[in-house]
Amino acid sequence: MDFSFSDNTKPLRPSAIREIFKSLVDPSVISFAAGNPSPQSFPVGQFKTFVDEILDKDASAALQYGITEGYTPLRADVLERNKRIFGIGEEYDAAIITSGGQQGIDLTAKVLCSKGDAVICEDPTFIGALNAFRAHGLDTIGVPMRGGSIDPDELEAIVKKTKNAKLLYLIPTFQNPTGRTMPLEVRKECLRIAQKYDLIILEDNPYGELRFSGEDIPTIKSMDKEGRVVYCGSFSKILSSGMRVGYVICHGDIASKIAVCKQVNDVHTNLLCQMVCHKFMTEFDLDGHIKSIRELYKKKSKLMTGRLDEIGSDRIEYTKPDGGLFIWASLPGYKDHDGFVKLLAERKLCVVPGRTFNCDENEPSYGFRLNYSTPTDEQIIKGTEILKNTINEIRG
Amino acid sequence: MDFSFSDNTKPLRPSAIREIFKSLVDPSVISFAAGNPSPQSFPVGQFKTFVDEILDKDASAALQYGITEGYTPLRADVLERNKRIFGIGEEYDAAIITSGGQQGIDLTAKVLCSKGDAVICEDPTFIGALNAFRAHGLDTIGVPMRGGSIDPDELEAIVKKTKNAKLLYLIPTFQNPTGRTMPLEVRKECLRIAQKYDLIILEDNPYGELRFSGEDIPTIKSMDKEGRVVYCGSFSKILSSGMRVGYVICHGDIASKIAVCKQVNDVHTNLLCQMVCHKFMTEFDLDGHIKSIRELYKKKSKLMTGRLDEIGSDRIEYTKPDGGLFIWASLPGYKDHDGFVKLLAERKLCVVPGRTFNCDENEPSYGFRLNYSTPTDEQIIKGTEILKNTINEIRG
Repeated sequence: MDFSFSDNTKPLRPSAIREIFKSLVDPSVISFAAGNPSPQSFPVGQFKTFVDEILDKDASAALQYGITEGYTPLRADVLERNKRIFGIGEEYDAAIITSGGQQGIDLTAKVLCSKGDAVICEDPTFIGALNAFRAHGLDTIGVPMRGGSIDPDELEAIVKKTKNAKLLYLIPTFQNPTGRTMPLEVRKECLRIAQKYDLIILEDNPYGELRFSGEDIPTIKSMDKEGRVVYCGSFSKILSSGMRVGYVICHGDIASKIAVCKQVNDVHTNLLCQMVCHKFMTEFDLDGHIKSIRELYKKKSKLMTGRLDEIGSDRIEYTKPDGGLFIWASLPGYKDHDGFVKLLAERKLCVVPGRTFNCDENEPSYGFRLNYSTPTDEQIIKGTEILKNTINEIRG
Repeated sequence: MDFSFSDNTKPLRPSAIREIFKSLVDPSVISFAAGNPSPQSFPVGQFKTFVDEILDKDASAALQYGITEGYTPLRADVLERNKRIFGIGEEYDAAIITSGGQQGIDLTAKVLCSKGDAVICEDPTFIGALNAFRAHGLDTIGVPMRGGSIDPDELEAIVKKTKNAKLLYLIPTFQNPTGRTMPLEVRKECLRIAQKYDLIILEDNPYGELRFSGEDIPTIKSMDKEGRVVYCGSFSKILSSGMRVGYVICHGDIASKIAVCKQVNDVHTNLLCQMVCHKFMTEFDLDGHIKSIRELYKKKSKLMTGRLDEIGSDRIEYTKPDGGLFIWASLPGYKDHDGFVKLLAERKLCVVPGRTFNCDENEPSYGFRLNYSTPTDEQIIKGTEILKNTINEIRG
């Protein structure tokens, strides 16, 4: 029989990235396409010790239903750590544990935006957020990334003419897909504009702890004194992505509504792994562990950028990351980036075409995303070689 | 600041049950209010062995991102088991692993129903499903439970006059909250009516394997030969509820759309626990384990019903369960069941007021839900004593 799908979900297509992910069964294919943390970053031995301790002492609690808002000690840890590291957390704030940062984005949009409302986004931006917004029937309105960031004047002009704007979605630090970090002045301007036009800011910060060069810039949430910023964080890039544990820190009124929606979404997040996270935050040198991940990614990013430098800046332009997982690259003056990405795939190198991250998928894109955290050093060397040869091929 | 919530989620209130759950910090309160499996039903030792094996041999996979549709071996196990136990699974069917059965319900509604569509439900029914439907802006239209089930003629009349009906939500076996099982003839009629009026049936079967008396009745899904039934199952009541692993078996076209929406909801379900479930389904006597849960619940239900019998059928009427977790009780001729439930709470016995499960919360209810799987035997004895005394108090 033929099925008719809902108005909101009818137009949705699978994310190109996860489709690429599925196609990587051929072991000879090199992938710079993932957004995965390095398997070397997983603290496996300690994870096992903590799981065993929990199942020895507290199995009945770990395997039973828990509270929708999350494991109470972990909620406290999350508030404490984000206060200490990022200066986040006012008296009115609460933390809710979510099934990855993705659920935080999805539920925030669900509770704050009605069908037909618009979300203003950096353009390009994270496809998982764009599709979450689309699945709620929301318009995604892009503000172009220019140089290192969006232009506040352009943002204000777009907000002004978008009558149904409700939410401003931002990844200020090591943005996905561009790897760029928003300067302090632009962050302040975003908050000012949100105040002026009564928007809520959804600040997505999954990579914020992964800085390996330069100085930290304050989160927008830390500058907000009225509860206008909903902040999403995650354990995916510092402990394990497969366990699906993230969190939202936001005003208690919004948190309560998110909890009601989470209840009917998945009741609560996997409790055993919440308890494991609590142990990692209280009985483990998490800061030391994150430091080692930073060193690993610094090394990997340097290996990749070194190879890209050899191709020559007349042939490839790219962002030099200060942290996170991604590099954004483009071929100066070259028009057909989609075609170029296909050529790479034929030569067994997967990268993500820039168009994937467009707020409007029908617009062309002049770039593609490279990831350096997942491939091995050998794969980085081999993959950048394919990239170089393919560029030389088309450029002659 | 004041926040304005979305049209769909503005009217949502926290589930009364989970609020009761939170209030149970006072250890002297006895709860017949939960829907929790017995902690005795968790195979803790084996769980730990399996987790250790996975983390020893396959940690990089278990802690890394996985495929949205679920861990491939587990998807195959789920199809195989449901074929064997329930005769479910046509060539066009696919399995998707979800974060508990709840997510299966939520995503099925999300992909099939647009705002303003109606879901026809047994009345009363599972509050988690009702609120999931409401959170998508759907109308919940009830068909009264009469005697053991809904009346097919009444169902057809209601479907006929509900122009925007899209989905028929049913818990045919050991229904929540009534504990009742739908007879075969009614199941056939539900499928016939769904065909005639082009509805999709969402068959929710979290308790189906927990029969401790009587004979299994075929699932509606097993009678469907065109892909009209979406079937939700769960590991919550046979292995662990805290791990949040469930599944949907449905036509591949619907499964693909559910996968796209799951991707933007939580990317995938906790992978470590999916891998644990795979081991439980292939390296463990799951049938033997479920048999022991049935015996446990048979014993507990008999203890509770024996005590209820002593109160006398002129004072309390209730359903004798053949399986599952619940008993539905009412005081014959008594009007104020909400008030009675409050009286019980003052005497430190929590039960769930029937109104919680109404499709229309403004309608009165003449019953309340009792759970026998979670309380200890001692608590069952003490709690039914409170029930008896309170009934005697109001009846004089």
